[in-house]
Amino acid sequence: MMEQLVLHEDPRSGNCYKIRLTAALLGLPLERHSYDILKGETRTPEFLEHVSPNGRIPVLQAGDRFLPESNAACWYLAEGSSLIPGSRFGRADCLRWMFWEQYNHEPNIATLRFWFQYVGEAKLSALQREQVPLKRLGGEAALTLMDQHLARYDWLVGKEVSVADVVLFAYTHIAEGGGFCLDPYPAIGAWLERVTALPGFEEMTD
Amino acid sequence: MMEQLVLHEDPRSGNCYKIRLTAALLGLPLERHSYDILKGETRTPEFLEHVSPNGRIPVLQAGDRFLPESNAACWYLAEGSSLIPGSRFGRADCLRWMFWEQYNHEPNIATLRFWFQYVGEAKLSALQREQVPLKRLGGEAALTLMDQHLARYDWLVGKEVSVADVVLFAYTHIAEGGGFCLDPYPAIGAWLERVTALPGFEEMTD
Repeated sequence: MMEQLVLHEDPRSGNCYKIRLTAALLGLPLERHSYDILKGETRTPEFLEHVSPNGRIPVLQAGDRFLPESNAACWYLAEGSSLIPGSRFGRADCLRWMFWEQYNHEPNIATLRFWFQYVGEAKLSALQREQVPLKRLGGEAALTLMDQHLARYDWLVGKEVSVADVVLFAYTHIAEGGGFCLDPYPAIGAWLERVTALPGFEEMTD
Repeated sequence: MMEQLVLHEDPRSGNCYKIRLTAALLGLPLERHSYDILKGETRTPEFLEHVSPNGRIPVLQAGDRFLPESNAACWYLAEGSSLIPGSRFGRADCLRWMFWEQYNHEPNIATLRFWFQYVGEAKLSALQREQVPLKRLGGEAALTLMDQHLARYDWLVGKEVSVADVVLFAYTHIAEGGGFCLDPYPAIGAWLERVTALPGFEEMTD
C-alpha cells in the first residue's frame, strides 16, 4: 500500500497535470495543495526549507518524504504498474522520451505557453522576446519528431501506453496556448484521442 | 548477458562521458564510434535515419537497437546493479536528480562550456551573448543546490553512490571550462574526490 500522497502544485502547470493524470489512470488518490507561482509562493523560505530547495512545483509528497521533478514523480507512482514497460530496453526507452520531453519539448512548448498565456506578450523582457523565434522552431521540431514516430506506432514505447505517453500528453495537448498549431501533425492528433479515451482519463481543469 | 554495446559519441561531450563512466564503473565493454558535432556529423540524413531522428549524440546502441538521451543510456546500463537504489523511493529520487541535471544543470553549465570552449566567445551570436548572464546565474544556483545537499550527505541519493552521482559528475567536474569557479563549493569538491576514488573510475580523456 502506498503512503498518503500530496501534490504540491500550481493547477495551471502541465508538469503538475502529468502527475494528476498518472495518478488518475492508476486510480491513486491524490491530495492537492496549490501555490501561485506568479506570486512567488514557491520561493518562500518555508517552501525552500520544507518542500523543495529548487523552489519549483510540482513536488510529490509521499508520507513525510518530498520528491521534486514531475517526471520522477510520475515514475514513482507508476512503478510496478502497466505504465512502466516490462523489458529493460523498454524501461530505458520510456525514460529516453521522458528526458527528451524535459530537454527538447518542455523548454520550448511549455515556456512559450507560460510567456504568452500567463506572463503576457506585453510584459515579456527583451531577452525573452528575442528567444521566441528559436523556441518556436525548437517546439515545431519536437512536434515533428513525435508526429513521425506516432505515424508508425500507436504509442511512444512498444505496443502499450506507458508513462512516457502520459508526460508528453501534458504539454502537447495544450501546445496551442503557446501559439503552436497542431493541424500539421495528424499522427499527434490521433494519439491525443487515444490518450483521452484511456480508462480513468482526467481532463486538465483547475 | 548484455548485447554488444556501441557508443555513438563526441568524446568532448560530457553527456557522452557519463555513459563511458557508467560502463567503466560496471566493467562493461563499450565500443566507441566518434562524430564531430561542430562539423554537423550528427545531422546527416544517414545519422537521422539510422542512429537518432533527434540528430544529437550520445546514442547508445545495444545490439541492433538505438537509445538516445544520455541519462536513459546510463539507466539502461546500470539497471540491476548497485548504481540503481534498491527502494522505490530511492529509484525515483535518483531519477529526480537526473531530470534536474538535464533541466537545471546541463543547459547552464554544459552550454556555457560549449560556447566558451568550443564555439569561442568571438563567434557567439548576439542572442547567445545576451543569455550568458542568466546561464551563469542558473549554473551557480545549480552548484549551490548540489553543494548544500552534499554538505549533509556523501552521495546524492541514500548512503551509496548511484547513477545520479555519475551523471552529475560529468559536467560538474569540468564546469571551469564554462567559466565557473568551484572554490565556493567545498562539499562539491569533496564529492568529486569521492567519485574519482571509485573502483573502475575512468578520466574523461578523448
